[in-house]
Amino acid sequence: MLAFSRVAIIGMGLIGSSLARAIRAQLPTVRLTVTDADPAVRSRVLDLDLADDVADNAATAVIDADLVILAVPLGAFAAVGVTIAADLAPGAVVSDVGSAKAAVTEALASLMPPGVHLIPAHPVAGTEKSGPDAGFASLFHNRWCILTPPEGTDPTALARLTDFWTRLGARVEIMDAKHHDLVLAVTSHLPHLIAYSIVGTASDLEGVTQSEVIKYSAGGFRDFTRIAASDPTMWRDVFLTNKDAVLEILQRFTEDLTALQRAIRWGDADTLHHRFAASRAIRKAIIDAGQDADTVNFGRDIAPPR
Amino acid sequence: MLAFSRVAIIGMGLIGSSLARAIRAQLPTVRLTVTDADPAVRSRVLDLDLADDVADNAATAVIDADLVILAVPLGAFAAVGVTIAADLAPGAVVSDVGSAKAAVTEALASLMPPGVHLIPAHPVAGTEKSGPDAGFASLFHNRWCILTPPEGTDPTALARLTDFWTRLGARVEIMDAKHHDLVLAVTSHLPHLIAYSIVGTASDLEGVTQSEVIKYSAGGFRDFTRIAASDPTMWRDVFLTNKDAVLEILQRFTEDLTALQRAIRWGDADTLHHRFAASRAIRKAIIDAGQDADTVNFGRDIAPPR
Ligand SMILES: NC(=O)c1ccc[n+]([C@@H]2O[C@H](COP(=O)([O-])OP(=O)(O)OC[C@H]3O[C@@H](n4cnc5c(N)ncnc54)[C@H](OP(=O)(O)O)[C@@H]3O)[C@@H](O)[C@H]2O)c1
Ligand SMILES: NC(=O)c1ccc[n+]([C@@H]2O[C@H](COP(=O)([O-])OP(=O)(O)OC[C@H]3O[C@@H](n4cnc5c(N)ncnc54)[C@H](OP(=O)(O)O)[C@@H]3O)[C@@H](O)[C@H]2O)c1
Repeated sequence: MLAFSRVAIIGMGLIGSSLARAIRAQLPTVRLTVTDADPAVRSRVLDLDLADDVADNAATAVIDADLVILAVPLGAFAAVGVTIAADLAPGAVVSDVGSAKAAVTEALASLMPPGVHLIPAHPVAGTEKSGPDAGFASLFHNRWCILTPPEGTDPTALARLTDFWTRLGARVEIMDAKHHDLVLAVTSHLPHLIAYSIVGTASDLEGVTQSEVIKYSAGGFRDFTRIAASDPTMWRDVFLTNKDAVLEILQRFTEDLTALQRAIRWGDADTLHHRFAASRAIRKAIIDAGQDADTVNFGRDIAPPR
Repeated sequence: MLAFSRVAIIGMGLIGSSLARAIRAQLPTVRLTVTDADPAVRSRVLDLDLADDVADNAATAVIDADLVILAVPLGAFAAVGVTIAADLAPGAVVSDVGSAKAAVTEALASLMPPGVHLIPAHPVAGTEKSGPDAGFASLFHNRWCILTPPEGTDPTALARLTDFWTRLGARVEIMDAKHHDLVLAVTSHLPHLIAYSIVGTASDLEGVTQSEVIKYSAGGFRDFTRIAASDPTMWRDVFLTNKDAVLEILQRFTEDLTALQRAIRWGDADTLHHRFAASRAIRKAIIDAGQDADTVNFGRDIAPPR
């Protein structure tokens, strides 16, 4: 038996549309209703035939749904919560895909009517693109989806949501919302902040032109530009929402970078070598864990070694 | 007519062995002599049949060569220079592939006998691997090779070296050594320092385990681990050699990062959005310039969009 039979997705960008495609592919009997604030996105979703129904607004979309998933930028969560609260079906599970969890859970929890189960979720998968055309069904395959059920969550509702993500190809992990936010500050939010920052630095120097930065980017810089091409609205919201954890991890990063700066200034060869030598092991572990491909140069300069 | 007929390569790691493969592929009539300090590398080069002769030491390798290329870590340049100086043929061009240029040129210039042309070079191409098995012939295709001829360089010698790199598939640019070092500090050295630093930070936290960092690395962190897996000896030498330019660019980066940190602390949504929105254009320009592939997620999660 399927855990859910009528699913509603609010927000049909990269993640919402990937979810719709994955549901269509893996759970074809689910009746899927979707919506988006942007009329152009709604019409594109119709063209792409990504759902059974495309509702005009979120309140209409959630009527009768037994699973509602918010896939909008974090800054829109509270407004969507207010819009849908009165129309949620009793017993429905309300979840999301937001990249930060503690603040979001707090914003939504008080809005939920009795009998509705709020179980926040975050699939740790994405790309640097956005919008409904960027999505694809296999985005969640072999990626982790973190659920952060609040204390006292109904175990059956939790088991159903776990089953749902598992069927979409994800591996489910359960953790406390605050811990989620700290872990993701390290593995996702700080990397994005630094990537945005270095791209900004490089494009705004007096001594080096933009055209030089572009020409010689194969020296390493180009790697940072991928995630720095991510959606600015989404990421603005992530940093405003997960502020405390990000500032804490950023402080640690700055200390570590300052130590390397000091080693360079003083010509401390041993410290530099020692710090650099430690990094190969972690890349190998990530590849072994199936979280990155083992292709040299990210497969960019593909050529058979002679 | 070929610009050079007898080429010697000192150091047969990633870059030296790629060069040897490229010469074999594009300039098959060149007589190629190579060497390496490591006997295991020399024997591997024999097994792979990458050269006509594998010399026991650098002094022997350069005898009769009309082009000598140093492909050793920057820290070994002066020692190699001392070793080969007396055996260089009159009229020979001495070049290299080192990632920093001003200090290297200074170290080698005074060692060159009269009639030998020193023309430093840096192919802006590489991977995160090292050693003779990691090389491949197409590494330099469509990548830039920067030549930094000292004042008064013989124009014929410069033209011959330009021709050599062009035949290997590279695009040649000529610039002043100091300017090279500043440009590369931005496009290569700072990215590597930051990548090493963030990988260090992430693997050394109390609140987040290494296994969590690995599991959730698809959120963005994994992008940084590629270049942080690069050879520690090579990179130690780069930072010790190009110290001034790296410290200058690092200072700028820290200022920019601090501005973002401040915007997060004060909830300055507009500043964050504005800064983040600027980055997409530079990625697009890099792709348009043929310096990165236009594949979502670096092609890691390949799946046709439905
Ligand atoms: N991108 C990733 O890599 C990634 C990974 C994991 C999780 N996430 C999370 O997934 C969520 C969505 O991100 P995304 O990348 O899919 O963004 P996206 O491609 O920009 O799509 C978001 C969509 O939501 C719509 N929207 C905004 N406010 C709305 C509202 N009040 N009601 C209905 N629709 C609304 C947007 O329309 P407008 O364009 O008109 O605003 C847009 O079409 C975010 O919470 C993000 O944190 C993202
Ligand atoms: N890797 C890149 O992405 C890249 C890109 C552009 C330029 N470069 C430059 O290319 C040069 C070589 O880097 P690589 O990546 O090819 O390094 P690599 O793969 O580590 O190879 C360097 C080789 O040089 C040997 N060597 C060290 N000292 C020597 C000496 N005194 N005489 C002869 N051989 C010696 C090493 O042997 P041992 O192992 O015994 O030390 C090793 O086999 C560096 O100057 C680097 O700055 C690198």
